Amino acid sequence: MKLNCDLGESFGSWTMGLDAQAMPQIDMANIACGFHAGDPLVMAKTVAMAKQFNVAVGAHPGYPDLVGFGRRSLNCSRDEIIALVIYQIAALDGVAKSQGVKVSYVKPHGALYNDMMAKLDVRSAIMQAVSDFHGDIKLMLQATPDWQQHQQEADTFGLSLLFEAFADRCYDDNGSLLSRNKPGAVHDHDKMLAQVVELAEQGTITTVNGKVLKLRVDSLCVHGDNLTAVNAIGDIRRVIGQ
Amino acid sequence: MKLNCDLGESFGSWTMGLDAQAMPQIDMANIACGFHAGDPLVMAKTVAMAKQFNVAVGAHPGYPDLVGFGRRSLNCSRDEIIALVIYQIAALDGVAKSQGVKVSYVKPHGALYNDMMAKLDVRSAIMQAVSDFHGDIKLMLQATPDWQQHQQEADTFGLSLLFEAFADRCYDDNGSLLSRNKPGAVHDHDKMLAQVVELAEQGTITTVNGKVLKLRVDSLCVHGDNLTAVNAIGDIRRVIGQ
Amino acid sequence: MKLNCDLGESFGSWTMGLDAQAMPQIDMANIACGFHAGDPLVMAKTVAMAKQFNVAVGAHPGYPDLVGFGRRSLNCSRDEIIALVIYQIAALDGVAKSQGVKVSYVKPHGALYNDMMAKLDVRSAIMQAVSDFHGDIKLMLQATPDWQQHQQEADTFGLSLLFEAFADRCYDDNGSLLSRNKPGAVHDHDKMLAQVVELAEQGTITTVNGKVLKLRVDSLCVHGDNLTAVNAIGDIRRVIGQ
Amino acid sequence: MKLNCDLGESFGSWTMGLDAQAMPQIDMANIACGFHAGDPLVMAKTVAMAKQFNVAVGAHPGYPDLVGFGRRSLNCSRDEIIALVIYQIAALDGVAKSQGVKVSYVKPHGALYNDMMAKLDVRSAIMQAVSDFHGDIKLMLQATPDWQQHQQEADTFGLSLLFEAFADRCYDDNGSLLSRNKPGAVHDHDKMLAQVVELAEQGTITTVNGKVLKLRVDSLCVHGDNLTAVNAIGDIRRVIGQ
Repeated sequence: MKLNCDLGESFGSWTMGLDAQAMPQIDMANIACGFHAGDPLVMAKTVAMAKQFNVAVGAHPGYPDLVGFGRRSLNCSRDEIIALVIYQIAALDGVAKSQGVKVSYVKPHGALYNDMMAKLDVRSAIMQAVSDFHGDIKLMLQATPDWQQHQQEADTFGLSLLFEAFADRCYDDNGSLLSRNKPGAVHDHDKMLAQVVELAEQGTITTVNGKVLKLRVDSLCVHGDNLTAVNAIGDIRRVIGQ
Repeated sequence: MKLNCDLGESFGSWTMGLDAQAMPQIDMANIACGFHAGDPLVMAKTVAMAKQFNVAVGAHPGYPDLVGFGRRSLNCSRDEIIALVIYQIAALDGVAKSQGVKVSYVKPHGALYNDMMAKLDVRSAIMQAVSDFHGDIKLMLQATPDWQQHQQEADTFGLSLLFEAFADRCYDDNGSLLSRNKPGAVHDHDKMLAQVVELAEQGTITTVNGKVLKLRVDSLCVHGDNLTAVNAIGDIRRVIGQ
Repeated sequence: MKLNCDLGESFGSWTMGLDAQAMPQIDMANIACGFHAGDPLVMAKTVAMAKQFNVAVGAHPGYPDLVGFGRRSLNCSRDEIIALVIYQIAALDGVAKSQGVKVSYVKPHGALYNDMMAKLDVRSAIMQAVSDFHGDIKLMLQATPDWQQHQQEADTFGLSLLFEAFADRCYDDNGSLLSRNKPGAVHDHDKMLAQVVELAEQGTITTVNGKVLKLRVDSLCVHGDNLTAVNAIGDIRRVIGQ
Repeated sequence: MKLNCDLGESFGSWTMGLDAQAMPQIDMANIACGFHAGDPLVMAKTVAMAKQFNVAVGAHPGYPDLVGFGRRSLNCSRDEIIALVIYQIAALDGVAKSQGVKVSYVKPHGALYNDMMAKLDVRSAIMQAVSDFHGDIKLMLQATPDWQQHQQEADTFGLSLLFEAFADRCYDDNGSLLSRNKPGAVHDHDKMLAQVVELAEQGTITTVNGKVLKLRVDSLCVHGDNLTAVNAIGDIRRVIGQ
């Protein structure tokens, strides 16, 4: 179970994230591509750091909304989503290629990720985009009970999927994340580690109401935007024995 | 002598250029990459149009200055220029690749083009970027009496160059374009055609003072932003017999 | 019944709208403020033109979405809407004040306008913003059967409203515009003029199903983005006898 | 001698500067206006904080270059500079006015500040803009031996000036700041305090070569972007006895 983390979210003179501390501890870096965060120079530096620590480079495309950090849904046409996803994957892949590295997967960011999980037409547009750019690149989705349906959709594009779970988020019985507005939505440190251990050993997640969900999970999403989160990565790594 | 033209300069709801009329008449389309003009959807549509008319696709990267249309110089570091040029070439190449087309050359836009011609360090950064992205892609420069020096610089990057001349601009004795502030800087229709004929038949340009310059010219820059310019393309094509 | 029109929607090197032809024929210019269209120089030029033809200057604030032209809803907090509306009104008012002109009303643009009509919280935030900026500035809403409720809401902010109708759009029985997806959504020239005459003489609009709506209408929205629309302004002006 | 500090330089999700620590210790807050940093919500929050600590609010307009943080010169026409400066002052003034506060001075940012000091035409355009916006607003310039000439220029616009010095920068004999590339360009803590004391008590600055410059200084520029700088504000305040 690989650890993935959003990195490269600085922009111009603004710094975000403890990339230097997080990078050595993760397996997969989701690197912003300039639409919600990141700029060409930040991207080049983040790729160089990923290369140094032998971390896989993933494109982290978002809606074109810098001031909103890509966290707000934008009503885009299918063609628009395809074009903006290809644009961003390609831009990062070019920056990476110039350093002898390749983008190996795509994980959409923020509202684009949420729309992908919630709406078939957005998901289909993103699958089309990744598949159009390069058949060997994988698309990362949230691991849910619908994962087989999602894989079937991907099969029509000849696309491989990766499924990720969240270490620190409490799951609802339907496999979605409990809304952040609800009590207990975010686990404390011990519950987080317990959830990780259960996932690693049983392949299951126990929901807010005690229901046990069997999920296919290829990767665990961890955070690098503050020191507590970065320290937690080390603890997570220890309990999964890697 | 191929005809090249800046196209794909619309942005969002704003239209610029008579792309549909110009595209069928040219050989090489310099397509904006989103920093000074163009957006992912405009880029996708422009590539599709180029493909339809069998026109070569070139990346037309610019400084990140949308409101200034990339016409104002920005003091960038070498690393910044390399990163922003690679980013833009790669983005267009990805959009093109998804349609089975490849970017075959790069022609910088506006102030980036002018800085490239005027400053060795900018030119070197751009050469590095193009070479880093892909060795087979050519870089287009202005044809000047310094073309051999420019080719030597390019050789150190293993880079092939294309040289372009301007049909409608009067040349100074040193091979630069006569400043637009000076009388006679822009040729009328007949002088323009005469300059094209001289270039096609003799490979020379006669300057404002009657000096005859021998230039290496691979391509002629034509314009598609107004009807007069688009109509001139047809006349140019006739006199060069293609 | 005043005629209002969206103008000042050019941006940098991109031109939009036939402002020079439309301005002399209208009473109120809704001028873009730089977030979805317009830039400081375009704003200054548009204000100067409005002043020349004695046209009232209105702020036309939008969501910060240049590539989407402010036509896509953005999920903003109340504080964010207040801040971005005040920012835009103030910016235009400053540009106008430097020419001895004042912003006298506000008409939100595109998705911000639609959200204002559809959502009480957005409408309330906009009313707060206009009222906070200056008590004398009026807010323009769409004239609907709910106009009295809207005026009551505005009263709590001490705000005066203006209500506008659309000359060329067919109305649904509930007073909303018939969706553009439906047949007959946009009137032909004769139906448009008939609708204007009915409004001017009876103060009513006849809906798609023949229902007669009594609306309070202070202003009629006309268009300046193409020649047909601009020519229609003259016809409208003639039938309302101004 | 008032202390002024650049604040409000966060943008969207990106934080910059220790505004909460710096604000209580300064007299004048130069608040970014959205072109190089700041956004409407950040501006509203920064004004609220200034109001809380009774700090004067100044507009800090910059070139439209977010990724470059306004640190790169942009070749703008006179009309463009006037329009973009008025736009930014007005926007901040509107946000401030909605909180019962007024912009009382303007200090250009970064490259716009440098161009103002170096180029008469830029300085004149900025003076025109401030004067056009409101006659009571003052413009802050760097205190140099040319201050009387600058005041004469301002007189033609009916404009009052403020002159600022830099606590931590070594001055060249001609009254300009020693280039950051040169050794000793930035004072250590003790030299900084000594320079402040000399300014406060004698009204003079001793240059890199020991020359004593008599300058008119109304305000001292301090920094709030890191903890060392913020702590230095307290020390400066102590030595000048305020």
